[in-house]
Amino acid sequence: MSRTLHLNVFIHGRGHHEAAWRHPRGTTASLTDISYYERIAVLAEQGKFDSVFFADHLTVGKDIGHSARGGLEPLTTLAALARATENIGLIATASSTYTEPYNLARQFASLDHISNGRVGWNIVTSWLKGAAANFGDTGQIDHDERYRRAFEYLDVVTKLWDSWADDARVDDPASGIYVDLERVRPIEHDGHYYHVKGALNIPRSPQGRPVLVQAGSSEAGRQFAATYAEAVFTAHLEKATAVQFRTDLRQRAKAVGRDPERLLVLPGLSPAIGSTEAEAQRLWTELNELTVPEVGLAHLSARFGGADLSHLSLDERLSPDDLPDPATVQGAQSRAELIRDLVARERPTLRALLHKLAGGRGHYITAGTPEQIADVVEDWFRDGAADGFNVMPPILPAVLEDFVEQVVPELQRRGLFRREYTARTLRGHYGLPRPESRFFGSSRTSEERVAV
Amino acid sequence: MSRTLHLNVFIHGRGHHEAAWRHPRGTTASLTDISYYERIAVLAEQGKFDSVFFADHLTVGKDIGHSARGGLEPLTTLAALARATENIGLIATASSTYTEPYNLARQFASLDHISNGRVGWNIVTSWLKGAAANFGDTGQIDHDERYRRAFEYLDVVTKLWDSWADDARVDDPASGIYVDLERVRPIEHDGHYYHVKGALNIPRSPQGRPVLVQAGSSEAGRQFAATYAEAVFTAHLEKATAVQFRTDLRQRAKAVGRDPERLLVLPGLSPAIGSTEAEAQRLWTELNELTVPEVGLAHLSARFGGADLSHLSLDERLSPDDLPDPATVQGAQSRAELIRDLVARERPTLRALLHKLAGGRGHYITAGTPEQIADVVEDWFRDGAADGFNVMPPILPAVLEDFVEQVVPELQRRGLFRREYTARTLRGHYGLPRPESRFFGSSRTSEERVAV
Repeated sequence: MSRTLHLNVFIHGRGHHEAAWRHPRGTTASLTDISYYERIAVLAEQGKFDSVFFADHLTVGKDIGHSARGGLEPLTTLAALARATENIGLIATASSTYTEPYNLARQFASLDHISNGRVGWNIVTSWLKGAAANFGDTGQIDHDERYRRAFEYLDVVTKLWDSWADDARVDDPASGIYVDLERVRPIEHDGHYYHVKGALNIPRSPQGRPVLVQAGSSEAGRQFAATYAEAVFTAHLEKATAVQFRTDLRQRAKAVGRDPERLLVLPGLSPAIGSTEAEAQRLWTELNELTVPEVGLAHLSARFGGADLSHLSLDERLSPDDLPDPATVQGAQSRAELIRDLVARERPTLRALLHKLAGGRGHYITAGTPEQIADVVEDWFRDGAADGFNVMPPILPAVLEDFVEQVVPELQRRGLFRREYTARTLRGHYGLPRPESRFFGSSRTSEERVAV
Repeated sequence: MSRTLHLNVFIHGRGHHEAAWRHPRGTTASLTDISYYERIAVLAEQGKFDSVFFADHLTVGKDIGHSARGGLEPLTTLAALARATENIGLIATASSTYTEPYNLARQFASLDHISNGRVGWNIVTSWLKGAAANFGDTGQIDHDERYRRAFEYLDVVTKLWDSWADDARVDDPASGIYVDLERVRPIEHDGHYYHVKGALNIPRSPQGRPVLVQAGSSEAGRQFAATYAEAVFTAHLEKATAVQFRTDLRQRAKAVGRDPERLLVLPGLSPAIGSTEAEAQRLWTELNELTVPEVGLAHLSARFGGADLSHLSLDERLSPDDLPDPATVQGAQSRAELIRDLVARERPTLRALLHKLAGGRGHYITAGTPEQIADVVEDWFRDGAADGFNVMPPILPAVLEDFVEQVVPELQRRGLFRREYTARTLRGHYGLPRPESRFFGSSRTSEERVAV
């Protein structure tokens, strides 16, 4: 088999469906109890998943009144998960807009050491108004400038990760030499947005650099991903747009001189799993019946830059003109477009639209037997819509348990998915090489150089 | 017994003596291996220590060529240690100058949840030129302005920690109410240096606020400590100055309306422990013989704002005028004064001075049998020089093992130190109350309100 399927678990509150916490299969675990997240990561590791992932927002969610989400901060969470697991990759979102590059580069390098090479960074250029207001109102710059800044930010942090040669630490008590100072180099970055002089204050990490993950889908976002990202999370409601997206990203990667095989595309997949399709479908119905319209409306409004949608009535059919023009949206434009296209295509009532989005927020949702779920995975994978999936269980950990117990073995039987881990690092799971230091090249043996 | 002795372990490289890593009792553990720090924290917990502590610098140390230190980033380290231990407090340094208050407040709140209420923050206002250069050269402001900013910073982060009422999270699946929005309050801080609007995006933590620790000794530093600190780490070469310092801090605390019993003073103590005093003393001699003068000179220079001291010869007696005026030093002025006073008093050779500082960097160092070490502890404690000690083992973990096995039982026999933990939080160990939210007061029962 030439291509390998990759699976990530997106950990989100008590599950991705906004009413998960109200369903009988939902957990009552506290979202500030680290052992809850440890349990999920251990379960994902039992399922031989490549990685787990935490999204993040730098503000209190507007939906928090009726929505069980928010909880621990992602980087401190990853450090704890690194000690509860042995193999699985650990990915967290952090904002390039609101974190000093020296601090971010250092915490991720530290996490890569703590996890022995299992960390990935999901790069976001924060755009929420509420977040800006928590950071001195300094970061609310327009979409394109956000990405120009992000390009320079990435230049800075990758330089910092490369500022120690792999063999800089000599650690020889006999001679009294701890570090070979010739092998540590101040980065002397004096750019348009950032000025960072020194080397990082931590030796180069096991993966050299954490795996770089991204989720932007706009023009600037795609170009950024093609340049820097090694894995991309993306949302599609149908296979066709996923194929187009992946094809486009691979072409862009080639155009900037990269090997497109080193850019994995992982669409979101929110599955309900049952012994029959009808039983699986029933889970969506039950969950949708537990939703609170205010929550769905708050989410929909957020997708359209905070637009006021309170004049819309729940049981009338929507027209695309009821929603703001996605081109005016400062955040994730592509998600707004996707929702507007759906409205144009299906003309749902507002209630039906909110139900449709309640499970996957614009990601692909499906219901079926384990074989049917595996069929979807195989179909998208073989047809070039995906290198793997960002699995978004509607209820956590319950539906992840279903997936690990029922879908993973089916994927393994079909030869699509690993039966055992064959690597020890996230780069190894994702089939990505270990980057050399741009200042010092590789000082490892060729055997060490192959990410395992 | 009315007063309780408190003990913290200061974790620093392979030990506090700069040549620890070259000594036969030194460890060869990697300083980027989290299990090394876990081993030390577990050992300290076996010794019923109140807490462990990590200092921090936001730049590569100038001494790194010949000095085994630097390694993991403190906050990610604490998260891992929280899962390797059950009782001991976990304190880390973080810079108010180079971390956004929203990010810092959130990571510490997250750590307080992850550790079930065992976290403390050692507040530093970074001053190193090298650190400023890693953060856009924005933070190198003068001593007094640094502290003015720090006062406002503390106001912001304590507001953020108080922005959720303890009972804001209702978490009632039946009614669909997760958070009572009336019990979460945007802080609307619009100050001179900081503008932070929202509430923190994490529920209030087990301790309400992490324990606030500080180590400044200058006029502004003492006033800051008297206002905010609940524990103070300090360096003294003799009991008399320690008594003066503690007395002064307690008076200042009283003057701003605080109970001085809620401000613990913990001087540094670097002990060598042997079955005879001579054997203990031999450890210092062995360690000093392994020092590299460049390292000592780099440290001494750093203490005096990076002054060039290369013209001094190792074996001639120093006069105080050989060192820069401490008043011109932008960093830890009090430490520079302490060193200059020592030179004035003892007129050591440069080599002897470097040896004197190699073990404790200006903290109290001593050598003796376990009984003699316990005598020092008891003497300082009874005479009002200390509420406890910041124990700085010259070699880690070896001398911490000695301390736990030999000194702690002696302190317990004398009724000075706990035999078992009687509390579950750092506030509980330190005898500090759980702060009420300034916005919501306490919504806990009186039983919960007592920190245990």
